[in-house]
Amino acid sequence: MDAQSRIPVAVLGATGMVGQRFIELLSGHPWFELVALAASDSHGGRPYAEVSRWRLPGSEMPASAAGLPVLPCRPGALLDVKIVFSALPGKVAGDIEADFARAGMAVFSNAKNYRMAPDVPLIVPEVNADHAASIVQQRKLRGWRGSIVTNANCSATPLVMALKPLQQAFGVRKVMVTTLQAISGAGYPGLPSYDILDNAIPFIGGEEEKVEQETRKMLGTWEEGQGFTGAPMVVSAQCNRVATREGHLECVSVELGTHASEEDIIAAWEHYKAEPQQLQLPSAPEHALVYRTEPDRPQTLRDRDTGRGMTVTIGRLRPCPILSHKFVLLGHNTIRGAAGGSILNAELCVSKGLL
Amino acid sequence: MDAQSRIPVAVLGATGMVGQRFIELLSGHPWFELVALAASDSHGGRPYAEVSRWRLPGSEMPASAAGLPVLPCRPGALLDVKIVFSALPGKVAGDIEADFARAGMAVFSNAKNYRMAPDVPLIVPEVNADHAASIVQQRKLRGWRGSIVTNANCSATPLVMALKPLQQAFGVRKVMVTTLQAISGAGYPGLPSYDILDNAIPFIGGEEEKVEQETRKMLGTWEEGQGFTGAPMVVSAQCNRVATREGHLECVSVELGTHASEEDIIAAWEHYKAEPQQLQLPSAPEHALVYRTEPDRPQTLRDRDTGRGMTVTIGRLRPCPILSHKFVLLGHNTIRGAAGGSILNAELCVSKGLL
Amino acid sequence: MDAQSRIPVAVLGATGMVGQRFIELLSGHPWFELVALAASDSHGGRPYAEVSRWRLPGSEMPASAAGLPVLPCRPGALLDVKIVFSALPGKVAGDIEADFARAGMAVFSNAKNYRMAPDVPLIVPEVNADHAASIVQQRKLRGWRGSIVTNANCSATPLVMALKPLQQAFGVRKVMVTTLQAISGAGYPGLPSYDILDNAIPFIGGEEEKVEQETRKMLGTWEEGQGFTGAPMVVSAQCNRVATREGHLECVSVELGTHASEEDIIAAWEHYKAEPQQLQLPSAPEHALVYRTEPDRPQTLRDRDTGRGMTVTIGRLRPCPILSHKFVLLGHNTIRGAAGGSILNAELCVSKGLL
Amino acid sequence: MDAQSRIPVAVLGATGMVGQRFIELLSGHPWFELVALAASDSHGGRPYAEVSRWRLPGSEMPASAAGLPVLPCRPGALLDVKIVFSALPGKVAGDIEADFARAGMAVFSNAKNYRMAPDVPLIVPEVNADHAASIVQQRKLRGWRGSIVTNANCSATPLVMALKPLQQAFGVRKVMVTTLQAISGAGYPGLPSYDILDNAIPFIGGEEEKVEQETRKMLGTWEEGQGFTGAPMVVSAQCNRVATREGHLECVSVELGTHASEEDIIAAWEHYKAEPQQLQLPSAPEHALVYRTEPDRPQTLRDRDTGRGMTVTIGRLRPCPILSHKFVLLGHNTIRGAAGGSILNAELCVSKGLL
Repeated sequence: MDAQSRIPVAVLGATGMVGQRFIELLSGHPWFELVALAASDSHGGRPYAEVSRWRLPGSEMPASAAGLPVLPCRPGALLDVKIVFSALPGKVAGDIEADFARAGMAVFSNAKNYRMAPDVPLIVPEVNADHAASIVQQRKLRGWRGSIVTNANCSATPLVMALKPLQQAFGVRKVMVTTLQAISGAGYPGLPSYDILDNAIPFIGGEEEKVEQETRKMLGTWEEGQGFTGAPMVVSAQCNRVATREGHLECVSVELGTHASEEDIIAAWEHYKAEPQQLQLPSAPEHALVYRTEPDRPQTLRDRDTGRGMTVTIGRLRPCPILSHKFVLLGHNTIRGAAGGSILNAELCVSKGLL
Repeated sequence: MDAQSRIPVAVLGATGMVGQRFIELLSGHPWFELVALAASDSHGGRPYAEVSRWRLPGSEMPASAAGLPVLPCRPGALLDVKIVFSALPGKVAGDIEADFARAGMAVFSNAKNYRMAPDVPLIVPEVNADHAASIVQQRKLRGWRGSIVTNANCSATPLVMALKPLQQAFGVRKVMVTTLQAISGAGYPGLPSYDILDNAIPFIGGEEEKVEQETRKMLGTWEEGQGFTGAPMVVSAQCNRVATREGHLECVSVELGTHASEEDIIAAWEHYKAEPQQLQLPSAPEHALVYRTEPDRPQTLRDRDTGRGMTVTIGRLRPCPILSHKFVLLGHNTIRGAAGGSILNAELCVSKGLL
Repeated sequence: MDAQSRIPVAVLGATGMVGQRFIELLSGHPWFELVALAASDSHGGRPYAEVSRWRLPGSEMPASAAGLPVLPCRPGALLDVKIVFSALPGKVAGDIEADFARAGMAVFSNAKNYRMAPDVPLIVPEVNADHAASIVQQRKLRGWRGSIVTNANCSATPLVMALKPLQQAFGVRKVMVTTLQAISGAGYPGLPSYDILDNAIPFIGGEEEKVEQETRKMLGTWEEGQGFTGAPMVVSAQCNRVATREGHLECVSVELGTHASEEDIIAAWEHYKAEPQQLQLPSAPEHALVYRTEPDRPQTLRDRDTGRGMTVTIGRLRPCPILSHKFVLLGHNTIRGAAGGSILNAELCVSKGLL
Repeated sequence: MDAQSRIPVAVLGATGMVGQRFIELLSGHPWFELVALAASDSHGGRPYAEVSRWRLPGSEMPASAAGLPVLPCRPGALLDVKIVFSALPGKVAGDIEADFARAGMAVFSNAKNYRMAPDVPLIVPEVNADHAASIVQQRKLRGWRGSIVTNANCSATPLVMALKPLQQAFGVRKVMVTTLQAISGAGYPGLPSYDILDNAIPFIGGEEEKVEQETRKMLGTWEEGQGFTGAPMVVSAQCNRVATREGHLECVSVELGTHASEEDIIAAWEHYKAEPQQLQLPSAPEHALVYRTEPDRPQTLRDRDTGRGMTVTIGRLRPCPILSHKFVLLGHNTIRGAAGGSILNAELCVSKGLL
């Protein structure tokens, strides 16, 4: 796909934390050309540089975005766009995303609204790329010319990536997970500094339910005519906020379906072949999973940027006296767990000819 | 017990983080009079104020300690002392504590060395005050005139306090716990700031084993002739370090022995009658356990000082889809989980006439 | 003044960070009885415990406040109140505070609006208690039955406290100050955690101007007929935000009017006799100023709570090769620099019979 | 210079924080080939990967360094090396660096020992590249075949870079600077986390003196026969430690020699032509200085990586009521202020044919 023929895309919710990650990751994208920005607040078409401050450290607002007008979130305002990435907040995403899908656009949404809908796929391409085919039926069912594909909650995403190879090789019956999540997961302005400096907060509204439900949907099946069937496993989550900028650390305990040695499990992770890597999708990291052998890794700060934030790092595999095994994993929440994951979903659908 | 007759006590390992907590908590103690300080490094008897900088924020070095000479850790150097509180590091605590016990002193140790010894009690007075009686046999067995009583690891301590009422009321079969532990748990200088700022570290050497073993010992039984029998439960721990100053937060999932409603469980916590409160020990908090009903409590910063750092705060009780129930607890690691716990042990033994 | 005759007081802006400090400090106050709470947002008279979450760590919402209805900020709604403490935001404080003063109440305001007004005193009682007399003229001039007394910006407050003894003893010609200010200075929700974790921000809107102007006003004079005359000194401020919870640290360089040795200067601080201490006002700390001799003090964490947050700690006095001397000071920004300072102002005016 | 002919270099003090930065920055360097590592502690020639843990987040230990043996710091052990980068601690650097210079090697040192020596140049190439010529005389004077070139303290480095264009254009008479320095400046393990979390510390041993002296030496002159003459200016520094990982923020007030408008000053910074950029040295950033116009920049987190950590970012230029102008600057302390600066010095000397 040469630069001439890049697909015109837009970002909805362009002024928020995840919106900015979308813009950063789309800058210089080989397949997608960012041609429009929209936000739920009215900005009267003023240039992005005027209405939004760049908040991501280590980068500047891409020049290609700075001059784009910030438009209202209506399909009529974004006419030439084929793909729409949505970083909209849940309280407005529902109607707006449906409007865009109805108008014929392919919506890739980071919002929670449609994730558990029976005709909307919830995809992490390394895990359940086959669920993407469901959008054909979605269009029929909803009478839409476009479609909605969602990516998962930022904690569920790296979890399913670590679980999938285990499920495939040994089966997974039970999953206990306790998370240590970064402040960026709360968006911007998000968490007041007075609430988190020298503190840890054992509660994130709705998060535990999302992790428990989304994990089962993604590790489950989709079949034409049948729809989605959740994986036959039990998931129990406890979610905490800690004072880190990016990167969700998760302590996991699993009960596998069959006996597996630690060598078997590490081999399953290291040899896992996933579709994005086989299709060589532009945003796919070379390694979806990296297992580290040091006793104290992964660590949030040190491992979150592995694979440009798209790799999930695993470590500390050891026996669990209650279930089968314990381990620790880490994923970048605003890249792999949000904007990067959504872009990878779009690349997958383009590559499979589904749009 | 009037001020005239206060028991002369000493602190071993007086210059470290826990040593300073001992000094702070013993300052003005109604039963104990701090008469001597000792450290494993040689300080040639120079005054405490000269060899140690005070590191606890919110307080100054007590004047009563500032002028005490820092003596070597030998019984001969601390002749008039009856009770010795040990904050020594594990690598030297073993021999030194035995020397003091042999010399006739009652050693209350925060070190790990003797915690799992078959003739040394590991006590949290609200949990297993009856284990204290074992020191009579310990003296006989070891031929010591004195004795050693240990308090538990800073993560195990609040955990057993929350579990004990459940064990008593319903039985406890399985315990999964994931901790978010404060930096002060690593002592001083302890954790380099470069390692923890904007980071979370999923590893604390030896900690998980301690939590798993010590919990069972404390919730188990001691019987004359029989010794200690671990509780028939399985414990699985995952321990993490986060950027908080004090307070260990723990996400717990338990499988109870019998069915219990959430009301039953909260009632068990709230009505739990423990010996230190009944005996009105000076360091016992009014409430050993406090259950908070807010959805996002306990929090490390906000709840660690409850009961002057001696109360364990619990919250977020809810069903666990894998075991029976999940909840969150918080304990102050250098007060309840270290120096304060050890002083309470001494008060218990004095009160029971065991010394 | 016995408990029977305590003066009924109210807090305006009761739900914010400084509002909560007012409530905390007024709880159990020997002279003032908190009888009413008001907020600029409409809360329909619902109880404080319902409309406000307590955000100050280390304390719980005082029971005496929890049940008070949150009223609108209108004098008619707070009829029996004699003194009103205002923690209102600047954008609404102007009109509301005037309304209360007109209605006959004594307003003690933490807001910036009237600080530089030519007929409103800006007071730190240790510094310019004599300015309080100006409210008699203020009432005449404005035709108010009540009055407005303001306290200074949280950075200017500890600065003038350290400067006053120097001004008195040696004169002060020039003051350069660079601040390292805590996040609580930005109120609640205030500074997003994503903006400050692992960051320092060299800008606080309007702060430098306030420090420069308010310092001169407070160190200046008030004379009947003459009004306020600013002190003949130049002040230059640079203000920074850092990741600390409470406590503003300030690096100061001064040019004194006459030669003074370091001993002279320290003596000036240590022997400074201030009115609140002489009058034994209830909120006055025993020592308004403490000079520490350690080379690395004051430190934000370690010294902010000195004198229950009402003492200013000074240290590191040394020659400045450009002006005369350099030193470092620290003050608690939400206690001494806000609510505590305002309450002390009220105590001063009551004590002087000015209300 | 092709890869074949790269100059063999070594790093002394390879296991510390700055040593690791040297290794990181030398990995893939176009002119220099890292062939040897040495450390002051004895490691018996074991491979670097075995004796040192990689501590820099965002990168892994370069494979080229992992296998190198860690040798003793003796010239005889590093025979084929031409250039030696020293990250040794001050207490051992003096003798060791002299040994290497005597043995014919060009030592580029980050240590403080020789910075103020009358025959050793202290260089920031954008500021005083001409001082490099002094090493010819140094060799003669000391009878060394090699030489020592030092780079400045991490706070002095960005300061002189911002001052040089002002000195050149307007003259600089007085400089007041207050720093907010990152924890990495204290090395590793360096600052205990318990000392800095929720704290700011107004003291860094020896730092203020270094900033005051080194600034004058670098902005001064070197002439053959005359040696170094300090710049005729007064510098007054106050140095603070804050909880940031990397990046020293500095609040500066200057008195210029002639009147200059803000436009003049910004133009002086923006048009400053420096030798490293003209010589196109490999480590020279495109822009030595960047002036940002936003009111709240530079910020530590957001600007430290500008120019791969080699650019100094300036902002907030405004009048100072005491001296002439105030501004804020930021430099990366372990890159520009340490290893990167030292490598740039070596590139400069190679480029000038001085080695």
